[in-house]
Amino acid sequence: MTINEISANRCFGGVQGVYSHESRATGTQMTFAVFAPEQTMDGPVPVLWYLSGLTCTHENAMVKAGAQGLAAKHGIMLVFPDTSPRGEGVPDDPDGAYDFGLGAGFYVNATQQPWAKHYRMYDYIVSELPDILAEYFAADMDRQAITGHSMGGHGALTIALKTPGQFKSVSAFSPIVSPMNCPWGHKALGGYLGEDRNAWAEHDACALVGQAAERLPLLVDQGDADGFLAEQLKPELLQQACERAGHPLILRMQEGYDHSYFFISTFICDHMDWHAKALKQ
Amino acid sequence: MTINEISANRCFGGVQGVYSHESRATGTQMTFAVFAPEQTMDGPVPVLWYLSGLTCTHENAMVKAGAQGLAAKHGIMLVFPDTSPRGEGVPDDPDGAYDFGLGAGFYVNATQQPWAKHYRMYDYIVSELPDILAEYFAADMDRQAITGHSMGGHGALTIALKTPGQFKSVSAFSPIVSPMNCPWGHKALGGYLGEDRNAWAEHDACALVGQAAERLPLLVDQGDADGFLAEQLKPELLQQACERAGHPLILRMQEGYDHSYFFISTFICDHMDWHAKALKQ
Repeated sequence: MTINEISANRCFGGVQGVYSHESRATGTQMTFAVFAPEQTMDGPVPVLWYLSGLTCTHENAMVKAGAQGLAAKHGIMLVFPDTSPRGEGVPDDPDGAYDFGLGAGFYVNATQQPWAKHYRMYDYIVSELPDILAEYFAADMDRQAITGHSMGGHGALTIALKTPGQFKSVSAFSPIVSPMNCPWGHKALGGYLGEDRNAWAEHDACALVGQAAERLPLLVDQGDADGFLAEQLKPELLQQACERAGHPLILRMQEGYDHSYFFISTFICDHMDWHAKALKQ
Repeated sequence: MTINEISANRCFGGVQGVYSHESRATGTQMTFAVFAPEQTMDGPVPVLWYLSGLTCTHENAMVKAGAQGLAAKHGIMLVFPDTSPRGEGVPDDPDGAYDFGLGAGFYVNATQQPWAKHYRMYDYIVSELPDILAEYFAADMDRQAITGHSMGGHGALTIALKTPGQFKSVSAFSPIVSPMNCPWGHKALGGYLGEDRNAWAEHDACALVGQAAERLPLLVDQGDADGFLAEQLKPELLQQACERAGHPLILRMQEGYDHSYFFISTFICDHMDWHAKALKQ
């Protein structure tokens, strides 16, 4: 396996790079971004994954979240994967909708046709991209943390809950906490996984929290002026599930904030501090 | 005169807004962005202008520079104007080039046809938009500072040098320091102002610094891996001009940094501190 460097920009003393590679998981060319802080000159550093939301690529958070300065301060590598396979032969939503298909992989392995061939973002994030980081970057894979926004918050929560021991900490910005209970989730999980709701439960943070093998505390920030709050995000479902399961949750409702990167950039500092503390233990 | 709010997002305790209005200077609809920090709830706050570079709109720095958090900390309003008139009837470069016409107003009042009717960015920035800030925002117009990037660095330096007493401080990221001595400048000033090089000298920081009525110190950051450094930017010309004129200049060559917003976001903190110190005196 080889990776290609698409770009590399000096940033906060480190390097913000964009890379592509032929993915065995998705059967497509995939693009991802890595911020390698200056501390990588002295050896491997801990890794924070940032999973993005609907319509995003590797680029949105890399450009808009404002995380690199904090990662440089803490000596943490940032990884920004894409949100779906792309390219010739990759099917998209038949109506071109933003919430399914391209830009909307939902971090699952599709089992339904025509999606099953390429839409394998769970394997890509959990297995393939970690191998690449371990091989090509000064990444300490024994110290990983994960965060994400919206669909990517769903990805961060579910992946952390499904892989006990893999992550030292997890957080999310305005996550889809229960795809089993919102229109985005019904469309995505129904499309990728079919009608069996047991399969959906494997990718629903509220369902997973009840059977989690470790009690990794969840940090969630949610703007109360987020237009998707009531219909799609429903943080109260996560709160109820965590209460039932005795799972530690810090849910912070942020007054007046919406779903945008202006919200994320405002609170990314708290999340970086949260992850840095866990990664340095 | 009225202004229309296009968007408003809570950000670092303040509001990042985007606005449009019918401009008397350009005869077009103009769009600009303002970050109003929380401190505006208690009264007018000082203002930092950020002038953007070629191809940019009001949006680039608003989204990518990472300045809002620092503006919130210092209690400074940020203003991000557009870089040219736009819309129906506004002529563009005949070849659609990125370095003239739309997105490339160069902060001058054009005197040549067909540009003279709309391309009046100097008046827009120096006169019209300040009036709007004074009328519609909690802006303390007695405490203004100015910065910018590339063509916008040229704009910041020349406008500050041409309006003694207007700004408390000025800085620039990778500015075009002498449009009289680079291809971008020859094309832009030749096109907008005609062949009279005396008219060009009125918009050339190196020429203006020799006759400046006040000795406002210039802070300039320039990446030494900037692909435009040798042919277009030439910071050594500003260094020589400042030495000749006895004008204070802090020119920092930043090793390994390029022309991108990854460079700007790395050093915006130093610029915000620089302006905050001057604005609080």
